[in-house]
Order: sequence, then structure tokens, then C-alpha cells
Amino acid sequence: MKGFAMLGIGSIGWIEKERPACGPLDAICKPLALAPCTSDVHTVWAGAIGDRHDMILGHEGVGEVVEVGSLVKDFKPGDKVLVPAITPDWNSVEAQDGFAQHSGGMLAGWKFSNFKDGVFGEFFHVNDADGNLAHLPEGMDLGTAAMLSDMVPTGMMGVEMADIRFGDTVCVIGIGPVGLMAVAGAAIRGASDLYAVGSRPDCVRVAKEFGATEIINYKNGDIVDQLLELTKGKGVDRIVIAGGDNDTFAQAVKMLKPGGKIGNVNYLGEGDYIKIPRVEWGVGMGHKQIIGGLMLGGRLRMEQYAALCKAKRIFPGKLITHTFNGFDKVEEALLMMKDKSPDLIKPLVIL
Amino acid sequence: MKGFAMLGIGSIGWIEKERPACGPLDAICKPLALAPCTSDVHTVWAGAIGDRHDMILGHEGVGEVVEVGSLVKDFKPGDKVLVPAITPDWNSVEAQDGFAQHSGGMLAGWKFSNFKDGVFGEFFHVNDADGNLAHLPEGMDLGTAAMLSDMVPTGMMGVEMADIRFGDTVCVIGIGPVGLMAVAGAAIRGASDLYAVGSRPDCVRVAKEFGATEIINYKNGDIVDQLLELTKGKGVDRIVIAGGDNDTFAQAVKMLKPGGKIGNVNYLGEGDYIKIPRVEWGVGMGHKQIIGGLMLGGRLRMEQYAALCKAKRIFPGKLITHTFNGFDKVEEALLMMKDKSPDLIKPLVIL
Amino acid sequence: MKGFAMLGIGSIGWIEKERPACGPLDAICKPLALAPCTSDVHTVWAGAIGDRHDMILGHEGVGEVVEVGSLVKDFKPGDKVLVPAITPDWNSVEAQDGFAQHSGGMLAGWKFSNFKDGVFGEFFHVNDADGNLAHLPEGMDLGTAAMLSDMVPTGMMGVEMADIRFGDTVCVIGIGPVGLMAVAGAAIRGASDLYAVGSRPDCVRVAKEFGATEIINYKNGDIVDQLLELTKGKGVDRIVIAGGDNDTFAQAVKMLKPGGKIGNVNYLGEGDYIKIPRVEWGVGMGHKQIIGGLMLGGRLRMEQYAALCKAKRIFPGKLITHTFNGFDKVEEALLMMKDKSPDLIKPLVIL
Amino acid sequence: MKGFAMLGIGSIGWIEKERPACGPLDAICKPLALAPCTSDVHTVWAGAIGDRHDMILGHEGVGEVVEVGSLVKDFKPGDKVLVPAITPDWNSVEAQDGFAQHSGGMLAGWKFSNFKDGVFGEFFHVNDADGNLAHLPEGMDLGTAAMLSDMVPTGMMGVEMADIRFGDTVCVIGIGPVGLMAVAGAAIRGASDLYAVGSRPDCVRVAKEFGATEIINYKNGDIVDQLLELTKGKGVDRIVIAGGDNDTFAQAVKMLKPGGKIGNVNYLGEGDYIKIPRVEWGVGMGHKQIIGGLMLGGRLRMEQYAALCKAKRIFPGKLITHTFNGFDKVEEALLMMKDKSPDLIKPLVIL
Repeated sequence: MKGFAMLGIGSIGWIEKERPACGPLDAICKPLALAPCTSDVHTVWAGAIGDRHDMILGHEGVGEVVEVGSLVKDFKPGDKVLVPAITPDWNSVEAQDGFAQHSGGMLAGWKFSNFKDGVFGEFFHVNDADGNLAHLPEGMDLGTAAMLSDMVPTGMMGVEMADIRFGDTVCVIGIGPVGLMAVAGAAIRGASDLYAVGSRPDCVRVAKEFGATEIINYKNGDIVDQLLELTKGKGVDRIVIAGGDNDTFAQAVKMLKPGGKIGNVNYLGEGDYIKIPRVEWGVGMGHKQIIGGLMLGGRLRMEQYAALCKAKRIFPGKLITHTFNGFDKVEEALLMMKDKSPDLIKPLVIL
Repeated sequence: MKGFAMLGIGSIGWIEKERPACGPLDAICKPLALAPCTSDVHTVWAGAIGDRHDMILGHEGVGEVVEVGSLVKDFKPGDKVLVPAITPDWNSVEAQDGFAQHSGGMLAGWKFSNFKDGVFGEFFHVNDADGNLAHLPEGMDLGTAAMLSDMVPTGMMGVEMADIRFGDTVCVIGIGPVGLMAVAGAAIRGASDLYAVGSRPDCVRVAKEFGATEIINYKNGDIVDQLLELTKGKGVDRIVIAGGDNDTFAQAVKMLKPGGKIGNVNYLGEGDYIKIPRVEWGVGMGHKQIIGGLMLGGRLRMEQYAALCKAKRIFPGKLITHTFNGFDKVEEALLMMKDKSPDLIKPLVIL
Repeated sequence: MKGFAMLGIGSIGWIEKERPACGPLDAICKPLALAPCTSDVHTVWAGAIGDRHDMILGHEGVGEVVEVGSLVKDFKPGDKVLVPAITPDWNSVEAQDGFAQHSGGMLAGWKFSNFKDGVFGEFFHVNDADGNLAHLPEGMDLGTAAMLSDMVPTGMMGVEMADIRFGDTVCVIGIGPVGLMAVAGAAIRGASDLYAVGSRPDCVRVAKEFGATEIINYKNGDIVDQLLELTKGKGVDRIVIAGGDNDTFAQAVKMLKPGGKIGNVNYLGEGDYIKIPRVEWGVGMGHKQIIGGLMLGGRLRMEQYAALCKAKRIFPGKLITHTFNGFDKVEEALLMMKDKSPDLIKPLVIL
Repeated sequence: MKGFAMLGIGSIGWIEKERPACGPLDAICKPLALAPCTSDVHTVWAGAIGDRHDMILGHEGVGEVVEVGSLVKDFKPGDKVLVPAITPDWNSVEAQDGFAQHSGGMLAGWKFSNFKDGVFGEFFHVNDADGNLAHLPEGMDLGTAAMLSDMVPTGMMGVEMADIRFGDTVCVIGIGPVGLMAVAGAAIRGASDLYAVGSRPDCVRVAKEFGATEIINYKNGDIVDQLLELTKGKGVDRIVIAGGDNDTFAQAVKMLKPGGKIGNVNYLGEGDYIKIPRVEWGVGMGHKQIIGGLMLGGRLRMEQYAALCKAKRIFPGKLITHTFNGFDKVEEALLMMKDKSPDLIKPLVIL
């Protein structure tokens, strides 16, 4: 079969591979829609997870089941399915402990285009189909469905780690597609004042549609100063970090009230240390909680977020700014993600 | 001063009383707007909290500070203020334990028209002004502000006890003003399918505006049967009880999934027992959690809910279906609450 | 193979059956030690889960693996293993939601001697061996190990549901083997005053060894009155129910402070309703939380509780008051559990 | 009155001051026992909280009430009382939010020898007596009682922030008096393997008595390497930091499992940044939670920890290695704390 792959660091191309084999618990799917992710860009051009050779890329997409293993109960060939970027081993002790995304080791629930071929192939393999696939809800468009692989659950993970309560003031740092979903999630989690840090006009427009009450543009000055002025020096109760770099944490700590919480979903690609400013962190005693985590993955969360779409609480389809037709357009879509035009939020390829 | 009072069980009228005295931590306020509550009706005509003589009624309103004690720091005469129905003693061990509403004993944080005169007087007394008042936000209308005394925090308490998570299916039983705020709260807490049980057309209309996705009308058959049919026999993840009676709990348990939670905010006025059906409660092992609780009260929560109004997440002003002008109209408004016309949700008296 | 079975309601005996077949994820074990449970007694003589014909009994035991399926990674024939009474389907949506014990339906994670043959056979079948077995720790005696099937995790579930915090006053109602483990769990969860309700001398002795600070004997008068007198009318913060019947809940509600929590692990075998007293439950608003639940099951919890034994925090081996040798003694041990002699806590059969 | 004070950075001595005045909510106490703290040493010789002139030192002690304000209900002159190091303003919005220790600003619930004179005077002032004092339990020795001011609640705060669950493996870094109480707290919170990092023989002895299962001595090599070897490379579930410096956090992150939690109670006296190692922190996505916080303060917690002493769950009196008699010995005790002899854990001065 054909697949669009990382050939090595900095190098991409189409390759031929064997169609993956289907174990007793697994499913083999063919893609109906695919979306490239900034993570794919990191993987190829930054070599963020190390070198990989002829590894098929991609972890966002919608599929159709073509084969299932003998123990699979809830899916059959022909079923259209939602596919999560993270596909845990659900009987692992890590999953039993609530951290399925770390089943088998830190981040090891992330398998597509990490430990095995991703979804940018004519066929792709899904481990534990009953635990990791969900049925495509009737009437759901493919763009919305594709955003349920990663953009929605990752944005929501940020909101859940930040533990937003009714009336909390919240800042979301970074309003790419994940940050925008964090804005949407914060709004339906009970945020009151919701500050979104970003600058690109299309992202700003969607941030407001998704519930941001104020935009902080780093081009207008230090974001800490701006946030503190807007909050009369108090800072905010909760922060979701969905962009920036290691230094963003120092800014976040300065923007946060004592007793506040920071949830990070930004993949930190380089540098040795995240630095926490001692004084603003209350000399170790300010109760400013810091946590960062990978999305959980699996079937239930995807079903829950799909239900949020169906109930018209969130509208992830609005992230899709560019749509392509045909499997061969995966390359162009990926390069678009790499080059990030000003009007891009997220591209989609329909097969 | 003049006040509208419970003279005894079943009897109401205007009385004259001494203006209340102001202790070092306290404030004396005059009302700017008042709202009668179904609880006032229970108190007078059902004698729900026992007999009371010449007790000024009312616990919902907006005020203007006319006097403050020597230790009050954040309020001064002339300040317009939000006033919570529940005014706890914040240094009590119960408050330190997170249950300020039970400071001094179960439900004892509820003082207005229970242990002391309520807000339906020319002046009313607020204990611990810094801890229990909040400044009326600029631009907030009096109807919205009055709903922050009880309707909003009580509805929200139901949502918080039910512990609604992203994508949860939720049922709110009872869509009077408190239930409607629970619907609004569930929607901005992350509910997906949101079933509202009620029948009156105006309540149904507002429930849909507030985020209900489906209405269950008890006039159309057993609500358990209807809910189970709508959910394909699965039941819901979370239930808020904001109406009905002791028997509503048995219905709720039958409508709930294992692992689900019920949050009750309905004041149960009569009967000896709430009955939990053994089998549907998993013979004691189904993880169907049941909790009921009084709103917390105090300043912070009112500020948080006011911030939700300001950020346009909730619209409690929509509960006001009837507006009166003049202190003397309190009587008519209370009788309207007692007689509940079909088009009534909540009356407001502006002074 | 031979097995000791329920022949029908009220009837037990030895039967011959086919040795169970081993699926790709499963293990077949032979027992090294077995323990009968009061639940077995309920199942047979009360017909608590309905009629069963020729169903091999038992869900507490220690085993040796004799066969594993092709997908099993962590166990091989010859391994000695801990076996939980509850063996969930870990990829189910219920397990992904944190309620593995209800995978496939309320209580459906309970499979041994419910949906399939139990452990009182020459061989028994374990679904999802990697997810549900744990290695017998070096040096652990078989009595301690057998208590990790059900007595320890069920007692601990009560403690976890009651959510005991540092310094909480706690009452454990019922000090059979499960209640005794709840006492031990409460003590190492941070209880201060720890009241244990029971009467049998051996249970009382072990309760004190496990950390009870005071015994309440129902033979000395109403347990509510006794508890309230001991706590100067305040009641306790947390209650674990591990004995009694439906009416025990009314007592517990009366013994509980506002804001308190009740965790039930008692299997309620008969009656239509559990009754919650309206007034003492704060007319629905007293924040007295009620929850009851089956133990979670699976590998991780067993490993965690085994680690507690190894670290000498809990001593479940002290529950074993009577030890038998030989598979054929299972019958005598079960009848002993049925007839409950005064000096019995728990019998063990070593093979 | 006489007091032992910080005269300026690096300078201490006896001074004369006015006896403090008693407001309506306050109490004036005289000390019965006092204990100097490493924080006092930091305050004076490191100038950790900036310069202070003629500020009476001390925040650990037991007192006798000599005067109360008109609004104080539960205390009267002659009452012997426990006194917390942190005395919050309980009606503040921060306290209503669960962070009383930050009432009025980050760390601002810490008043003794910070914003006002401490307890090393002939008399000392306690704000909000009903909210911040507790009665000395009958039969409690003064050493145990004095440890309830700071050592116990600070150690316990570390355990609570680390959120220890049944069977968790835990490491406590630093076994001075606070770390020792964290060891004791971890043991009665359900830790299984409990690693304590320290070297001084007396501290090691008490750590073992308090429940440590293994001692890691930094003199025997890198503590990260030692811990990882002891845990077969897995690391631990939970870490309490009660010693070390900014660099300790990097070690802790390396010792922690994904999904783990770090609770810091160490006052970080110098340096600009705490550094979190990017890779071991899961490139931002490893769910390794980091939080640090000041003890809560106030009456309820002190009562809860006192109840733990009474129930013989913790034995903080064992921290007292040196006892002095007479107010004038405060100076010697403080200098002993500064110079830390090898056999010192905590000195106590009895008046």
C-alpha cells in the first residue's frame, strides 16, 4: 500500500509498505479524511522524537473499518469511525491508574507515527478497536470528526488540568487550533473573564466566537503587563498554555493568583529546563500548581466530545480554514501546516 | 421601621419594628429591589421551619448600604450591594471545613427570615459585611442582581454537587427558577445532552434558551420511562433535582447510570423518608452517589456568579416575568409566588 | 474437572465440569488457597442474585497459572498469582470512566460465580490476565494473599468512598472481615477517633489492633445514641457501612455531621427501599453524601494493597481464624461461614 | 513588656515594647511554651523576608489567654490554647476560596514576626481568636502542643498537596522536623514504600519510627540514582519536598512517575528560578504535577491534628530533642536552631 512518510529527519515522501496485519483485538481502517498537525512538522523537521525511517506520518483522521480481529465486538467492516491520536493499552496498570496515555511508559500511549505507522496510509492499524475507536455520529461532517482526533481532546485536556470552576478568570496562552479549543472548553467549563493571547486575525476572530472576552496581543507589549493591567494587578485563577515555549511558564506564573492552576498542553520541543520564578511562585509556598499532560485518548473521551459537538456546545469544524480533495493532497496540506500562512488555522484532506 | 412579615403560620402582614443595630463587623442596608421566593411561601403557609412571630420575610434582594460597623473595610454608606440569601460565619470551624452554609449547625448559615428578620424591611441587617456582601457591578440591572441572592447560587450548587464533566448527559428535574439556573449551569459546565423535566410553557421556553436539548413533560407519561427511552435504556450521567418531592429520588436513581451522581437542591418540606430503591441502587454497590445541599452563601460566590453574568455566560434576568414598583408591592408579589400563575417564573419588586 | 458448586437455590455439592477454555487474553489457574465469603452464602441460601444451576462457587483465592493465551505478556505457567474477586473488561467505556467494576453493566465486572464458574474448581478461568492478575509477592503468606481478593479491596473501597481526611472522626458500622479491613484502612487514611460498631469478642480484639479507638456494642443500647453521646452530640465526619441492613442508613445519617460522607460496601440482600430520614438529612440540604459501591477489581489495586501489606501498614492475615488443608475442605469452610461460630472471622483452605 | 526580637538583619536581642492592644475579635495571650524555627533563622540572618526592625520573633508556641475582645465567643482569660503559625482572615475572599493562608495577598496569612510581633514576647496578639485558636486538649504535653503550630501542619500540607493514595510509593526529601512530620503523615495517609532522604542519625531513627521503610543518604551517592535503583527504574508515585534548595525540584521530577505529584513545603530562600527538566517532565506532557504551599493555619486544622495526636496516630513530641526552662532561654534555643548540632531535631522552651 501507499503511504506518506517521514523518510528521515527533514525528509518526506511517498513510500510503499505492506498493509498492516490485524491482531485479535485490532482493526484495519482506510482513511476518509486526514489532517496534518504541527506535531508532524516537529517530528519531521525538528526531529523532535528522534530519527525515524520510512515511518508513515499522521495521527488525525476519520476512517472506515475494513477488517477487525476475532475479539472485536462493537465494530465491523464498513463502519465509519472516529480515531483518536492516542490509542492506549487499556488493561495496563497506567490506564488502571487513570493515565492511559502513559500506558507502557511516559507518553507511550501515543503510537501513530511514533512507534508504528500513522494514519497517512491507504490503510492504518488501530490497536484495541473496541477501546479506541468510536462510531462516527450520524450527520457529523468530516472536518468536525477529524478535529476529534487531537485538537479537541488536547485543548480540553488543558482545560481539565487547569480545573476551571464557575466564575474563574482564565487566560489561554496561544490560540492555534489547540488553544482555540481550549478557549471553547474554558467557556463551557464556567470561565467568566476569558483572556486569549494571540495575534493572527483569523485565530482572534474564532477565539471570540468560541468565548474569549478579551484578546491580548503580544505585539502590543509584554503579555504579563497587559494581563495584570486588565485584572487590576490580581492575575487570573487559571491558565492554559497552548503555545509559546519554555519561557512561557515564567510568564504564566507571574499572571497567576495564589491558589491558581496552570495546565500545559504545549509540546516543549527544545531547551533543557522550564524555569519557575522563585519569588512569584511564592518562594515555594504560593499554591500555584503546574501540570502538563498529553491528551488521554481512547473511545470514551471521543464519544463525550462528539456528544458536545452534537449538542452544539462546541464547534471544532470552524477550525478548518482550508480543504483539499484526494489522498495525494496530504503532502500539500502538510507543507501548508509547516509554512503556516497568516490565514491558516487547520487544513483538511478529504479522500 | 416598616416590614412585611410572617405574623404566624398562615398569616402575613405589615408590621413596625426597631431598625436593626449594627455591630462592628456588620452593615445595615436598605433594599433597592426585592424578590419573594417559594421558600417564603413554605415558611409562612406550610410552617416549614416552624412557627415564627412577626418575623420579617425575604432573603432575595439588592441593597444600598446605610451604615457599617467599625471593622468593616470594603463597604461604606451609599455602596450598592449584592446580598446573598445565606450569610455564614466565616471563622466557624464549619466554614473552615468548606461548609460555611452549616456554620453553627446544619443549615444555620441561613439567617434571613429564619433566625433574624429578612430583607423585606425598610432596613435589613447583614452580618460580616466584608465576608457576605459584594459590590453591585457597574451596569448590572436590578433583576439580574436580585437573582444572585438565591436562584443562581442554588441552581449552581446543584450543578456543582452533581459534578458535571465534559460531555456528561444530564437531567434537571424541575424547571422553576432554580431548576432553570441549574440548566444554565449544566450547559456551561460541559453537559452534552441536557434533559429538562417540566411542563409550563414559559419555563420550557427559557430552559431551551438556557441550553436544554430535550424537554421531558411528566404529562406525557412516566418521566423515568421517557428518559430511558430517550437514552436507549442507558440513563444519564448526572442529575440535578430542583423540584418534585421525596419520591423524586427514587425516579432519579432509576434514571442514573452506575457511577453517576445526583445533586439535590430541592427543599424537602414534608414526609419522613426519602426512599432509595435497593435494586436500581445496585443492591448498595452501584456507585450512584446522592447528595443534597444548601447554597454556600457569602461574598466570593456572588462575585463569581456576577462575573458569569458580566461575561454573558448566564442570563438570570430572563427569569423575571413580572416587575412591580414600590415597597408596598412586596405583598402582591409574594401572593403571586404563592398562587403561581401559569406564566410566572419570578416576580421582582423595585423600590 | 471437579468443582464445588451451587446446584440450585439452597443446594450445594461437588460436580464434574469441563476444564475452562483459555482465550487469547486469558489465563487458566489452579487454586493454591481458597476462602469462602458471606457473599457465597447469600448466593446459595438467599438466592440473592437469582437462581444458578451447577455454578461453581467462590471468588476469593490464590492461584498458580497453568495456561495463558497468546496475547498475555506478563504471566506464564507456573507463576503464583493474586486473583481479584472482580475481573473487569478494561477497555470498556465504563472502565475508561473510572468504574471498571460496572464494565458491561451495573456490577457486571463481578464474574466469578455470577456469570461464570468461580474459583472453587480444580481450575478456574481469568479473563484479561495481564489486567486482572498480579504476581504473588515473594514471602507473602497464602492467608494474606487470599484476603487481597475481596476482603481488603472491599474494605478499602468503603474508606475511599467515605473520603477520609486527616483528623476526621470516623465510624465503621459492622466489623466482620470487610469492616475490619475498613477499620484498618481508616486508620492509615488519617482518621482520628475511630468508632467501630460490633459485638463479637474476636472481631472487637482485631478492630482495636487495626486502629479502632472505641467500640460501640449494639447490645448496650441504640448505636445512634451511643455515638452521639461519645461525640458530645456532634456526630462523626465519615461513616463506612460494612454490615447491618437497609435500616442502617437511617442510623448512619443521624450519626453524621453536615458535610459528612457515607461509604457503603454492604451488599443489601433484601427489602425494597433504603430510607433516608428527611429531617436529619437536612431537609435535602445538609450535604450528607451517600454512596455505595462494589470494589474496583483488577491488577493495579491488588498490587497497591499487596504493597501496603509488604510495608506493614495493614495485616489482613490476622483475619484468618480457621485454616483447613485440602480442596475437599472447601465445603466445611463454606458451611462454617454460613453458620458463623462466635470465634470465626474468616476461614482459609490451603490446597 | 519584654520580647526577643530581630533588631535588624543579622542582629537579635531583648527589647521592651508596649503590650499589644486587643480588638473586638482578638485575644492577647502569654506563652506557656515556645519553639524557635528555621524560618526565624532565615528571617534574621538571611534577611529572607527583608529587613525588620525591633520585630519580636517566633511563630511556634502554646499560650494562655489573658484577654479577649467583646465578640470572642469560645475563649476566655485563663484558657490554655494551641496557636497556629498562620492566622488567616477567615472572611476574606481568599479564605472563602480555600486558600486562607493567602488571605490579603500571597502568604499574607502569615502574620507573626512578618507583619506583626511574633510569639517570643511576654504577651502576644492573636487576630480572630475564635477562628485561629484551639483549646489545648486535656493531657497533651507542651512539646506536642508546640509542634502543632507549624511542624505538624506544614509537614501535613506537603502530604496533602502530594495527594497520597492507598499503596502509593512515596519519597520525602529532607527529614528535619517538617520532613519527619511529612513521613508520619505519608504513613497514615496510605503510603506503601516510603523513602526518606536524609543523613543525620537522630533524624533517621525518628523517620523509621514514623514509618519510613527505606533511608536514602545523599552521602552514599546521587539520590536520584539511589531511588531509581531501589524502585527498579520506575520512580515513585508521590514526592514531598521538605528540604534542599531550588535544584531539588529537578531531582524530584526525575524520581517521579508519569501521573505523579510533587508537594513542596520547603521555603526557597534564594536564587531566581526553580528549574524543571524538560525531557524528564515529559516534554511538557508527562502529567507530573508540581505544587508548593504554605500551611493553611487556623483553628480547625489544629484541632484535627491534635485529634490525630490524641488518637495516637502521630507523635510529634518525639521531635523535641532539647528542652529549656525559662523565657530567657529563647535566645539560646534560637542559636541552637541556627547552629544545628548533629543531635538536634527541635528545641523547646518551657515558661
